[in-house]
Amino acid sequence: MTPSPTDSAQTDLAALLDREGAERELFDLLRIPSVSADPAYKADMTRAAEFLQRKLASLGFTARVDATAGHPLVYAERQNVPGQPTVLIYGHYDVQPEAPLEEWTTPPFEPTVRDGRIYARGSTDDKGQAYAHVRGVELLLSQGELPVNVKFLLEGEEEVGSPNLEPYLREHADELKADVIVISDGSRFAPDVPTVTYGLRGLSYVEIHVQGANRDLHSGSYGGAAPNPINALAEIIAKLKDDQGRVTIPGFYDGVEELTGEEREMWARLPHSDEEFAASIGVPALPGEAGYSTLERLWARPTLDVNGIWGGYQGEGSKTVIPARAGAKVSMRLVPGQDPERITRLIQEYVPTIAPAGVTAEVRAHHGGQPVKVDLDSPYVKAADRALTRVYGKPAAFGRTGGSIPIVAAFRSLLGAPVLLVDFGLNEDAPHSPNESFAVEDYHNGILTSAYLLQELAE
Amino acid sequence: MTPSPTDSAQTDLAALLDREGAERELFDLLRIPSVSADPAYKADMTRAAEFLQRKLASLGFTARVDATAGHPLVYAERQNVPGQPTVLIYGHYDVQPEAPLEEWTTPPFEPTVRDGRIYARGSTDDKGQAYAHVRGVELLLSQGELPVNVKFLLEGEEEVGSPNLEPYLREHADELKADVIVISDGSRFAPDVPTVTYGLRGLSYVEIHVQGANRDLHSGSYGGAAPNPINALAEIIAKLKDDQGRVTIPGFYDGVEELTGEEREMWARLPHSDEEFAASIGVPALPGEAGYSTLERLWARPTLDVNGIWGGYQGEGSKTVIPARAGAKVSMRLVPGQDPERITRLIQEYVPTIAPAGVTAEVRAHHGGQPVKVDLDSPYVKAADRALTRVYGKPAAFGRTGGSIPIVAAFRSLLGAPVLLVDFGLNEDAPHSPNESFAVEDYHNGILTSAYLLQELAE
Repeated sequence: MTPSPTDSAQTDLAALLDREGAERELFDLLRIPSVSADPAYKADMTRAAEFLQRKLASLGFTARVDATAGHPLVYAERQNVPGQPTVLIYGHYDVQPEAPLEEWTTPPFEPTVRDGRIYARGSTDDKGQAYAHVRGVELLLSQGELPVNVKFLLEGEEEVGSPNLEPYLREHADELKADVIVISDGSRFAPDVPTVTYGLRGLSYVEIHVQGANRDLHSGSYGGAAPNPINALAEIIAKLKDDQGRVTIPGFYDGVEELTGEEREMWARLPHSDEEFAASIGVPALPGEAGYSTLERLWARPTLDVNGIWGGYQGEGSKTVIPARAGAKVSMRLVPGQDPERITRLIQEYVPTIAPAGVTAEVRAHHGGQPVKVDLDSPYVKAADRALTRVYGKPAAFGRTGGSIPIVAAFRSLLGAPVLLVDFGLNEDAPHSPNESFAVEDYHNGILTSAYLLQELAE
Repeated sequence: MTPSPTDSAQTDLAALLDREGAERELFDLLRIPSVSADPAYKADMTRAAEFLQRKLASLGFTARVDATAGHPLVYAERQNVPGQPTVLIYGHYDVQPEAPLEEWTTPPFEPTVRDGRIYARGSTDDKGQAYAHVRGVELLLSQGELPVNVKFLLEGEEEVGSPNLEPYLREHADELKADVIVISDGSRFAPDVPTVTYGLRGLSYVEIHVQGANRDLHSGSYGGAAPNPINALAEIIAKLKDDQGRVTIPGFYDGVEELTGEEREMWARLPHSDEEFAASIGVPALPGEAGYSTLERLWARPTLDVNGIWGGYQGEGSKTVIPARAGAKVSMRLVPGQDPERITRLIQEYVPTIAPAGVTAEVRAHHGGQPVKVDLDSPYVKAADRALTRVYGKPAAFGRTGGSIPIVAAFRSLLGAPVLLVDFGLNEDAPHSPNESFAVEDYHNGILTSAYLLQELAE
């Protein structure tokens, strides 16, 4: 019987993995100290980009290194299956600085395997995870043509805030057109939990400024009669949440997508312990919005956190001053259904109305980011589920993440395609820290996941 | 008829003033740049002390310059009238630094008269006011023996916090024994209002420290689930006062001496305008404790003001951090009936009980000071009233001050005598600022007031 595409998609690719070759190549890439933050490594940035460009070209991709105002990025495409979906794989080849060097057990740019883990800067973030996709494509190509059209976008400035990515996306929007975008640049929920991350929170970041008197006053001569902007700021901040942990800004929750029963049940089944979570950050209790579990609070509920506060005398000893002004930085994490610009406007309108008598309060907008969610019923999510099931022998968990990944929102808005976050790493990989590592098994499972995912996306 | 003591006390001393001599001598003293904060002026400090010692010796006082661990102080006494009260006059010969020099119209140590005002550093604070007492004594001596025993204590470190005064008071408590202590080192209520200040607020100064997680957390990954110590601190501060502006610490108001109807009426008659007061500090309203006027809030009611606050990110731009800790400096002005140590203990007990779940809050004691009040019916207050009436042709106003003057509480507690604050200056003298000045008339009225006060205290 001639193998049909469906049969081919069911081939067990695990047996075909070239483990030794996949590790050797990744180690070569990890040896290039492509630290984007440090100008001393400029030449290494180019070396890393060219390494990837050559590899993808050797796999039959049209591949090039594109200059930007900063570090170059690698673009490659192989579009041999018209009518099939196009998948854009995003990753980054730049890494965090290696400091503090003395805390590394083995040198950060000499990859070393200990206890089943590859120790090297960039091993998990993001060279290891990005290269798993390169090897996943190679694995499929060893069996014939790719089942979908594939594009790679591998940038060199993720660790410095991707300052040139948005302009690039705008300029190359046509070329980068895809049906779905796949990113593997984070951590799955737990070691034995294959995970699809289908949502990110958005952000509204503002500053509150409170003005009292026209100058600093002596707290003896004026205390009791003059308005105190720090007391006033504290009052304003305290009023921004009620005793149920809910944000009090009128209209704040308007349009917020409530969790479905299915999602709540799904998350309740995840291996999570409030006790362990509290212990891991050293707190005696986990306050938060009433009526929601910790994961729900983290992934699906908006927040209001003060990120910084200042006013008056902060030095040693005492100074009896009623300062003229005080301020705070406040970030609100947003969830699907909330718009950052609208939320920013709402807090700008609300704060002056709750400022105590005698002071004036003003809210200055900083920046924002859209929340992102992929429909759980979308074929892309289901394809990822099937791929992960084939690798791990169990269905995927579907979680979200509490953070905001600006590039994801940028992809979403500039390229108009859904973004699938399929992470191969783990928190214990310690990205950004000394002794960053990536489990050898996670690397190979990443290669397999990539190959199966491309197969499943073809269905 | 031989003049009796009573008759002599009724002599109009104004006609006997040696205005020219009094001004010439004060100018000589003002020319000595006795800046206690600046080691460059060390020799001038000694010169100023010796100037005063020689002058008092020339008036028949036993006078000496006493070394301390810092700048010397001048002690002098003339005790020729056994059976009569002893009056200790305190003042200071050191002055504030002159900076910013470029803002002075005429040099700070070249006293210049313009528009009836003596412009010079120290003219009002406190050389001019202290020297008025020296010349007041001289005026009386020109008519015969002093009516009371007089001691002078003129220190050289008031502008640097009087670090060596308390040890000196302890060591010389017997020698400094007095029935009443007179200090002229401040401002009277208004130009046409001769004032006796009969009360000072005390102080409890503390720091609140709030601890959240064991490290700074990412507000995306943890926001909504992890406790935020800044939000918690704001909530704690907001809870320390109710919506009537009253402090909520249990027991805070226990024992507070309520104002008498007489005091309230007396203060209500003082020339004060809330509108002008608010305008002078540039605020649209004067919040404060309900049920009390502005002067009552300033002089007779305890306060709770945050003097400094900090936590998280205070730099430019944004950082999405939930910090591990936050803190604030808090001062409470206290009134008669409140004890600083007790109040400090009360807030230390209360704050942990109102800390939101998930954080721990701790209050660290800084320092405190006792509130001071002189009985309005005391013979000393009445003597001051009569003396001021003789100078200004109208009765004195009796006010208090909102600040805490640590040396007053020290005099009170270490020497056990009541302290009379009879100020000759005005706020518009701008002590501590460039172009400090003292009205020539206020100087001569100060001399007269001093002489009359010593006469009246003999009665």
